[in-house]
Amino acid sequence: MAKNLTTRAEDYSKWYNELVIQADLAENSGVRGCMVIKPYGYGIWEKMQAELDRMFKETGHENAYFPLFIPKSYFSKEASHVDGFAKECAVVTHYRLKNAEDGSGIIVDPDAKLEEELIVRPTSETIIWDTYRKWIQSYRDLPLLINQWANVVRWEMRTRLFLRTTEFLWQEGHTAHATKDEAIAEAEQMMNVYADFVENYMAVPVIKGVKTESERFAGALETYCIEALMQDGKALQAGTSHFLGQNFAKAFDVKFANQEGKQDYVWATSWGVSTRLMGALVMTHSDDNGLVLPPKLAPNQVVIIPIYRSDEEFGAVSAVAKKLQKELRDKGLRVKFDDRDTQKPGWKFNEYELKGVPVRIAIGPKDIASGTFEIARRDTLQKEIIAKDVIVEKVTSLMDEIQKNLFIKAANYRTEHTTEVSDYKEFKEVLEEKGGFVLAHWDGTSETEEKIKNETKATIRCIPLNVKKEEGSCIITGKPSAGRVFFAKAY
Amino acid sequence: MAKNLTTRAEDYSKWYNELVIQADLAENSGVRGCMVIKPYGYGIWEKMQAELDRMFKETGHENAYFPLFIPKSYFSKEASHVDGFAKECAVVTHYRLKNAEDGSGIIVDPDAKLEEELIVRPTSETIIWDTYRKWIQSYRDLPLLINQWANVVRWEMRTRLFLRTTEFLWQEGHTAHATKDEAIAEAEQMMNVYADFVENYMAVPVIKGVKTESERFAGALETYCIEALMQDGKALQAGTSHFLGQNFAKAFDVKFANQEGKQDYVWATSWGVSTRLMGALVMTHSDDNGLVLPPKLAPNQVVIIPIYRSDEEFGAVSAVAKKLQKELRDKGLRVKFDDRDTQKPGWKFNEYELKGVPVRIAIGPKDIASGTFEIARRDTLQKEIIAKDVIVEKVTSLMDEIQKNLFIKAANYRTEHTTEVSDYKEFKEVLEEKGGFVLAHWDGTSETEEKIKNETKATIRCIPLNVKKEEGSCIITGKPSAGRVFFAKAY
Repeated sequence: MAKNLTTRAEDYSKWYNELVIQADLAENSGVRGCMVIKPYGYGIWEKMQAELDRMFKETGHENAYFPLFIPKSYFSKEASHVDGFAKECAVVTHYRLKNAEDGSGIIVDPDAKLEEELIVRPTSETIIWDTYRKWIQSYRDLPLLINQWANVVRWEMRTRLFLRTTEFLWQEGHTAHATKDEAIAEAEQMMNVYADFVENYMAVPVIKGVKTESERFAGALETYCIEALMQDGKALQAGTSHFLGQNFAKAFDVKFANQEGKQDYVWATSWGVSTRLMGALVMTHSDDNGLVLPPKLAPNQVVIIPIYRSDEEFGAVSAVAKKLQKELRDKGLRVKFDDRDTQKPGWKFNEYELKGVPVRIAIGPKDIASGTFEIARRDTLQKEIIAKDVIVEKVTSLMDEIQKNLFIKAANYRTEHTTEVSDYKEFKEVLEEKGGFVLAHWDGTSETEEKIKNETKATIRCIPLNVKKEEGSCIITGKPSAGRVFFAKAY
Repeated sequence: MAKNLTTRAEDYSKWYNELVIQADLAENSGVRGCMVIKPYGYGIWEKMQAELDRMFKETGHENAYFPLFIPKSYFSKEASHVDGFAKECAVVTHYRLKNAEDGSGIIVDPDAKLEEELIVRPTSETIIWDTYRKWIQSYRDLPLLINQWANVVRWEMRTRLFLRTTEFLWQEGHTAHATKDEAIAEAEQMMNVYADFVENYMAVPVIKGVKTESERFAGALETYCIEALMQDGKALQAGTSHFLGQNFAKAFDVKFANQEGKQDYVWATSWGVSTRLMGALVMTHSDDNGLVLPPKLAPNQVVIIPIYRSDEEFGAVSAVAKKLQKELRDKGLRVKFDDRDTQKPGWKFNEYELKGVPVRIAIGPKDIASGTFEIARRDTLQKEIIAKDVIVEKVTSLMDEIQKNLFIKAANYRTEHTTEVSDYKEFKEVLEEKGGFVLAHWDGTSETEEKIKNETKATIRCIPLNVKKEEGSCIITGKPSAGRVFFAKAY
């Protein structure tokens, strides 16, 4: 067990907070609610970005960059959007500081007040649709498929590293289409891209669905989402993709001439994932010894640790280690050889366990004599002695095996923690005693949803897309329901 | 000549502004001084980022991310830094908006005033060194070699796309070292990395040197820089790398225990390049027909345009074009085949000339009959007929040839526009009539520098690193000078 790391059973929330810091992923900064993403954490985020960016480009999207600041008046243009986003946000009111006349330091210069306040973007629909008005005239300009990698700010009262921070990093896609069907297809496509990424790279299984009206993005007609389940039985929304209808086109007057020359408003989508995914990654796989990283996203997939007592032994061990490192790198693996003499092997074992490196290889004089290596898998913590002529093959195949095993383990956990209930009593019991997803019939009204939320803290995570249609009665009102929906307490 | 594009001779400044917009690189946004970087411009920036990021990693640096906001008090901690940076900046004073009671819209909530104002980072030394205090205890924690890709904000009064914008994108490296020598070596290394990138990828020749005291970064002991020359004879600072001494370590109390266990302050560097490089790229190579892009940074290196009159001809031409596209892609080239039937070939020729695509290939029925292709180089505008069995080889080798030719052309321009002068009269004549770099003796004082700046608008761009030591007398005061320095009017 890692030194001083609270166990999940003791206090899951504390375990998470400590792990993020101890594993050098991120830490709190001197600025309330804003985090510092440390190099090891940023290294994982960079791998996520690279894969997502590749997927976006393969589906025809291009990157661009829009301003950090949004004039206050832009928010008022889309009525529902302003209520959702323009409230808790950072407001720039001045553009200059000056030295205080009494020599007490620097103060805001009252003469440098902005005529119109600027909002630090909480999301960019308004500034982007204000720009699209200039870019779109004809059906020939459509579809417009653009993504932005950016920082955004939402003034959160309670923050937690990666899960909820005042500033966070994300990508936001904003597309414009000639038809409703095409926009809906785009929103669905991007939900599927997210699901593909989260399942196949992060090894986190997700439920695909749509949000209820009350959980929808402010300004959207439909919000598609992917929902994951953490090890404490709480759900985490991993990505959302919105069909915005013509709301923003109307608010910002973005029309196009269709093939018949008729003017019509443009159809829109937006979709995003953020550094919140880092939280989902940590909470899905990690254990009481520290991080567990899927090989596809691990900055180091393999670490080689030399065991020696003399300079002579170090020389012999090093030569073998470097040869193996080269052979594994030639296979495309990311391999670190930790030859620091400032730390003992035992310390290094703990360190890389804490950091979640998928495979550890130890080499000492005895291994050289016997022509073997000792390898340890981070996911199962199993050790094995492997002969040198099969080590490269073994380690290479372990990458796939560990990636698959993590997904299966998480999928099994989710299966075990997804419960169909038939009445409200059972609903509350399952929620309190077992947690996880609770599948229950619901009458489709916001009132019922609200009542359940107030009484149990559980929300409807999604109305699933791929689930059996099954008639039933709402657990609260007894009114008819066309199928069960996913309830859970959530991050 | 591109439609409606002002020529360089007519009005260089206007030519630049029009070109950036017409070539779809960037445009002004609804937010004063902030630009929108359009997909084509961002595509070039992404290529710059990718190469620089690779170079940073090869020299041992890791990426991380620090907060967008900096508490006002942090700026006061380093005395010279505050004067340089804490003045013209965006100040966040409130964290909430609310609906106005009179129903007139949304207003800033006076109850949501921050206790301490937050500054949107103009550069991150202060917040990063406040963090480093926690990360550095011993010589084992050093060197700390970190880079950040981020947006920054400086409240500029006069803005120009890419060259000077209120918000811009950049990278900022911040390193910490155990010794002065090591920090100086790092600052020099990063200047050399920048020079390598700018010369070998952007094909823009640069002068390496150090800034005079008055032009130094606020808080630096030495500022290394690379200076490029634009086609209008004005200089452009393309990158800077600062040796910060122990200034920030002292301001933020960052000490380490050295190998003897003695406490000492850490030595620092910082270095950055920004989207300003996009301006340098455009202004160095482009001509009255539009952009000219070096192949290494061009989003499309080759464009293939089909010439046809009937569907049958289109089919035949398309088949040949797609085969060639595949063959060139197999060689690693970025090749676009523009088969849109909404635009005529002549329109496409102009379009890709404006966009600076290095090589254009046209294919029509006559070419198929004769087994040839017509290729046109963007840099020289020369056309050539190439037989199909050597086309792949020819186009591949053209990439290197164009890359080299652009550099040589720019280097020749710089040589022709670098003039040694012996007195102030000649200095002023050269500056007014010919422009470019003027090499003159200077007595080393800020007073003389200031006088020349006030009278001629020329500044000392740098004291060059690799130039003959030559004794002389200052063109203003006649006092002794150890060597000539580079003067120019600058962006």
